[in-house]
Amino acid sequence: MLSITEYRQAVTDYLKQRVLVKEPVNLYEPMVYILGQGGKKLRPVLVLMSAEIFGCTYRKALDAALAVEIFHNFSLIHDDIMDDAPIRRGKATVHEKWDLNTGILSGDAMLINAYQLFESYEGETFKELTTLFTKTAMQVCEGQQYDIDFETRDNVSIDDYLLMIEYKTAVLVGAALQMGAIVAGTTEECKKSIYQYGRLLGIAFQLQDDYLDAFGDIETFGKQSGGDIIENKKTFLYLKTLETAAGVEAEQLGHLYSIRPQDNSEKIASVKSLFESSGAAELTRLEIEKYTQKAFEVLDSMPLSEEKKEPLRDFGKMLMNRKV
Amino acid sequence: MLSITEYRQAVTDYLKQRVLVKEPVNLYEPMVYILGQGGKKLRPVLVLMSAEIFGCTYRKALDAALAVEIFHNFSLIHDDIMDDAPIRRGKATVHEKWDLNTGILSGDAMLINAYQLFESYEGETFKELTTLFTKTAMQVCEGQQYDIDFETRDNVSIDDYLLMIEYKTAVLVGAALQMGAIVAGTTEECKKSIYQYGRLLGIAFQLQDDYLDAFGDIETFGKQSGGDIIENKKTFLYLKTLETAAGVEAEQLGHLYSIRPQDNSEKIASVKSLFESSGAAELTRLEIEKYTQKAFEVLDSMPLSEEKKEPLRDFGKMLMNRKV
Repeated sequence: MLSITEYRQAVTDYLKQRVLVKEPVNLYEPMVYILGQGGKKLRPVLVLMSAEIFGCTYRKALDAALAVEIFHNFSLIHDDIMDDAPIRRGKATVHEKWDLNTGILSGDAMLINAYQLFESYEGETFKELTTLFTKTAMQVCEGQQYDIDFETRDNVSIDDYLLMIEYKTAVLVGAALQMGAIVAGTTEECKKSIYQYGRLLGIAFQLQDDYLDAFGDIETFGKQSGGDIIENKKTFLYLKTLETAAGVEAEQLGHLYSIRPQDNSEKIASVKSLFESSGAAELTRLEIEKYTQKAFEVLDSMPLSEEKKEPLRDFGKMLMNRKV
Repeated sequence: MLSITEYRQAVTDYLKQRVLVKEPVNLYEPMVYILGQGGKKLRPVLVLMSAEIFGCTYRKALDAALAVEIFHNFSLIHDDIMDDAPIRRGKATVHEKWDLNTGILSGDAMLINAYQLFESYEGETFKELTTLFTKTAMQVCEGQQYDIDFETRDNVSIDDYLLMIEYKTAVLVGAALQMGAIVAGTTEECKKSIYQYGRLLGIAFQLQDDYLDAFGDIETFGKQSGGDIIENKKTFLYLKTLETAAGVEAEQLGHLYSIRPQDNSEKIASVKSLFESSGAAELTRLEIEKYTQKAFEVLDSMPLSEEKKEPLRDFGKMLMNRKV
């Protein structure tokens, strides 16, 4: 097995070889631009790791890994249009650097290109990979739609929210791991378990992302905190506070989430204080812990040697400690 | 074999059964909306016809036919955003009836849904269909990109233009026919020939579309003529005029294509007169005839009984006479 850094390098090298600018250049340049930006490449690394854990060389999984990375970046391009986001990874987003039409069309081409990469697999492997990919891609779209819908809905439940992050984020983590398992040709049981490990870890990760957006410092989290509060975003913390807070506190939160002051520092402080005093912050920490533990339990139960499990466990720990 | 009307009805019935509104409704309602608008459904009809010509019941080809129709409508939704078009088939376009984000995301979901429909085919049939679909979808994106690029390029050649319409329109007609042949499991030679028949007919059709936009009457063409001239669109007629016209005429056309008058009737009349006097209109009619003839020659050469060829020939004739 290689290290995460080495797998990441393998993905980057393969990407440079496979993703090239060709005619019509205005279609392919944005693909090369966004894929060449770096990014953590967690999903393709998981495809490669999983393939090796189940006994096959990571090289056979490179096309599937690249498909997952290209799909992820397709979704970023289209999401950035929908969110009207000017910056991604410190650089101009595609629709900002080019224009709306380029963002739409290059994104479409990337989604199709992801499918193209599976063509190097034969027979049932091809069908299994493509079917899993299609199911996952559809759920990612559904997750994005739920996320958009939640902005204007005032009856979002905790379960609605968990389903949204599962679809929008977690299923692709599960699918990445399962793709490695499919390429390696392991048992159905292992394929299911490795998917669950990724899905549960993905949910834990996204809940932690929400938590750190309010309570993280810029050093561990990598971005300025409070963004979700400024945007009045209905995160787990917010929904949990509404659920647990006394009437007065819930009303206060409702008021704070209806305003958009010039200077946000007071609003952020007040909201965070409600998140803590209501007990929601603590409940969120427990929920993150619960999903992380569930993920590790699934991993423990798998019929794999300790030696094989360790890299997956290390990856999970790193992810939750944000050292990757 | 059924009649075209009966195949169309079969597509419509199957569509109503398979394409339903489900959660999240904002993702699926636009799909049901655009697919329920009618439209000529030429492409899915070709899939069904082709399957029966090569000896299999059309029922086995329904999923592939629906995939082609859903893909076509995905491309219409995204193209209408790019063209800022408010109306399609006499009804509000998706981004107009809902909004930009709904147009982008529902379109994405439809592209993915098209792939989902191929999953009912097994083994090599699945792979052949999916691979053909992916290649075709990518060409359609490339064709759309060329079309966008041509708006701001002043060195578009006739060959560039032919490649653009081939990718944007013709390859999907070829692919539709080939999909029926794949489902029926015919020979490689027949699969190639039927694709060529569709591709050549598709080019002829698109050239004729350009021609009728200038010279058609509303009765046979179904829309007000002169739209391309008003938009200064670099059609085959325009490019052929630049190629064949004397210096003065070419200059006149260049001037007319640089203005956007309030009342377009004089501009349209002058441009049409240049199309005729330069000989470009006649050359365009010959080009349409050439591609139509080439298509029929491919059909003639196929190892099929006259009885099997007839519906395909009738379809081609109808298409070129615009009675469908």
